[in-house]
Amino acid sequence: MEKIVINNGAINSQILVGEDWKSIFKLTPQENVIIITDENVFNIYGKYFPAYPVVILRPGEKSKDLRIVGRVAMQMLKAGIDRTGFVLGVGGGMVCDVAGFAASIYMRGIRCGYVSTSLLSQVDASIGGKTGVNLGNTKNILGTFSQPEIVICDPSMLRSLPDEEYFSGLAELIKTAMIGNEKLVELIENNHEAILRREIGFLTKVISMSVRFKASVVSQDEKESGLRRILNFGHTYGHAIEMATGFSHGFAVASGMELAADFSFEKGYLSESDRGRIINLLKSFNLLREYKISPARMHSLIFRDKKRSGDEISFVFLRTAGVALVEKVSGRELSDFYKKRVSV
Amino acid sequence: MEKIVINNGAINSQILVGEDWKSIFKLTPQENVIIITDENVFNIYGKYFPAYPVVILRPGEKSKDLRIVGRVAMQMLKAGIDRTGFVLGVGGGMVCDVAGFAASIYMRGIRCGYVSTSLLSQVDASIGGKTGVNLGNTKNILGTFSQPEIVICDPSMLRSLPDEEYFSGLAELIKTAMIGNEKLVELIENNHEAILRREIGFLTKVISMSVRFKASVVSQDEKESGLRRILNFGHTYGHAIEMATGFSHGFAVASGMELAADFSFEKGYLSESDRGRIINLLKSFNLLREYKISPARMHSLIFRDKKRSGDEISFVFLRTAGVALVEKVSGRELSDFYKKRVSV
Repeated sequence: MEKIVINNGAINSQILVGEDWKSIFKLTPQENVIIITDENVFNIYGKYFPAYPVVILRPGEKSKDLRIVGRVAMQMLKAGIDRTGFVLGVGGGMVCDVAGFAASIYMRGIRCGYVSTSLLSQVDASIGGKTGVNLGNTKNILGTFSQPEIVICDPSMLRSLPDEEYFSGLAELIKTAMIGNEKLVELIENNHEAILRREIGFLTKVISMSVRFKASVVSQDEKESGLRRILNFGHTYGHAIEMATGFSHGFAVASGMELAADFSFEKGYLSESDRGRIINLLKSFNLLREYKISPARMHSLIFRDKKRSGDEISFVFLRTAGVALVEKVSGRELSDFYKKRVSV
Repeated sequence: MEKIVINNGAINSQILVGEDWKSIFKLTPQENVIIITDENVFNIYGKYFPAYPVVILRPGEKSKDLRIVGRVAMQMLKAGIDRTGFVLGVGGGMVCDVAGFAASIYMRGIRCGYVSTSLLSQVDASIGGKTGVNLGNTKNILGTFSQPEIVICDPSMLRSLPDEEYFSGLAELIKTAMIGNEKLVELIENNHEAILRREIGFLTKVISMSVRFKASVVSQDEKESGLRRILNFGHTYGHAIEMATGFSHGFAVASGMELAADFSFEKGYLSESDRGRIINLLKSFNLLREYKISPARMHSLIFRDKKRSGDEISFVFLRTAGVALVEKVSGRELSDFYKKRVSV
């Protein structure tokens, strides 16, 4: 088991990777706890829950909605959760986002923690204290910066994940590797079989590396005023692709990384061989899907992105596999690059 | 004009009392601004607004709802407000609460400021960085701690307030005086006419004193872990009375202060003459209305209060007119006191 700590002023956030998830019940208070989960997770793990009140959400992105947050809060109120209460999210990114957001606004903020059940949330969503819901089809536009006190990432829970979700998470793992850790890139390249077989030991290792990297970034820049932006690699085009196609998040980000790698090459930041290396890795796990989005639609979708300020967007380029840089580019430049590329 | 600054770490919140409200448009950015207001305020002051997008809410407590916050955020999105944007609330407590809450969760927090148009919000609601909405009939249960960058309190705007709203605000002014400033108690006692006539000079003076006191409390305890609780004087019973009767906030708080003064007397904290002084002041402005709430209902309403932790409630007692103390009391004790009192 690896323990990683994110230190942000008043709150220490502890992330335990490789720990048995049921340990969470020794770490949370004995009462005044409410569990937020979804149907899929509840069906598998609900039988191990203690006798806390449970709110069971419908699986899927549609539950990331302000109305659902309102309903969760109403259940909290009915369960008598007070200021000293604790919200425990048990689930993937959606559950952690909704649970964390609800906890952060309930009575203007109460304690929370997560058991992170998907690869996507173990490597990314549950780490770093961003919570949020969608508005219409604009993703994560409403939310808070709010650190969970504790997160358990138990890779044995990944065994029961559907392939679609598992590989969606793998794309985010590759993202982290690409922006900050060449050793992690190599590990993923050289352990194809271990990844496909979901080997617990190997997953514990790579998830820890990913969490450690993200924790170091977030500790330095909790509120995304600078450094943290590199975590958005693949996400500018990726969010737009996700909105337009409905791809799972990781698959959309994979296509976003492909575009960002091409753009980095075109700008002269990335060598041709490194570009090939990145794209080959994405292809080796079948992460790149076909999609058709017109340049005009891409432009309008990118312009809903919250990373935008005025006409400029902080875009994450790669220098090599493992090193990123952030640079402001105009919306025009992003559109033009995409237009040129789809016309090829 | 008086300028009062609340300093909480990263953000300085400036409160200008007695300033012409239209100065706000010199202090906010030139673009990327959205105004949140309500119909009543818009009908009087809308003609002075620059060409910013405006969201007009229905007046009244019902607009303090998570769904309304969602709709406001959707309007912000449509208006193209980005991370560097600015939300300007122009209105009373409801507008400031909704605008501040929306600003604090939109893209995980953007800048905001208020023009505070009611006496209640000038002396209380717009000061201190609490935002919030109701859930069912439980008040302010969802929200954030989020400081506005600037607040303008222009007492000339109070001239057009309906009596009901004006006197509701007066009750909060009296509350501030009672917990922290005997000189302010005296000023209110001795200037009955100036208050009834809504004299700008006098109002500027007493609002400044109230804001200055609240600012000093909030600067020391932004997130209500201790000292700030004294601001809840009259609010434990007051919130319950508000929920049960639908009284305007200040009138409910006035009745809550009456109960709290009686309770303080019963506990031996407050002298009989001081109790009389407080109740006479409330009566002199007709702030005490008749209501009938059964002890059982009062008990259940108090137990929804977010100031509760477990069975204990931090209750604000008075020592004299101008000095408060906070003490934990059991829900049972609160119920018993109320029961005894209504049976008299």
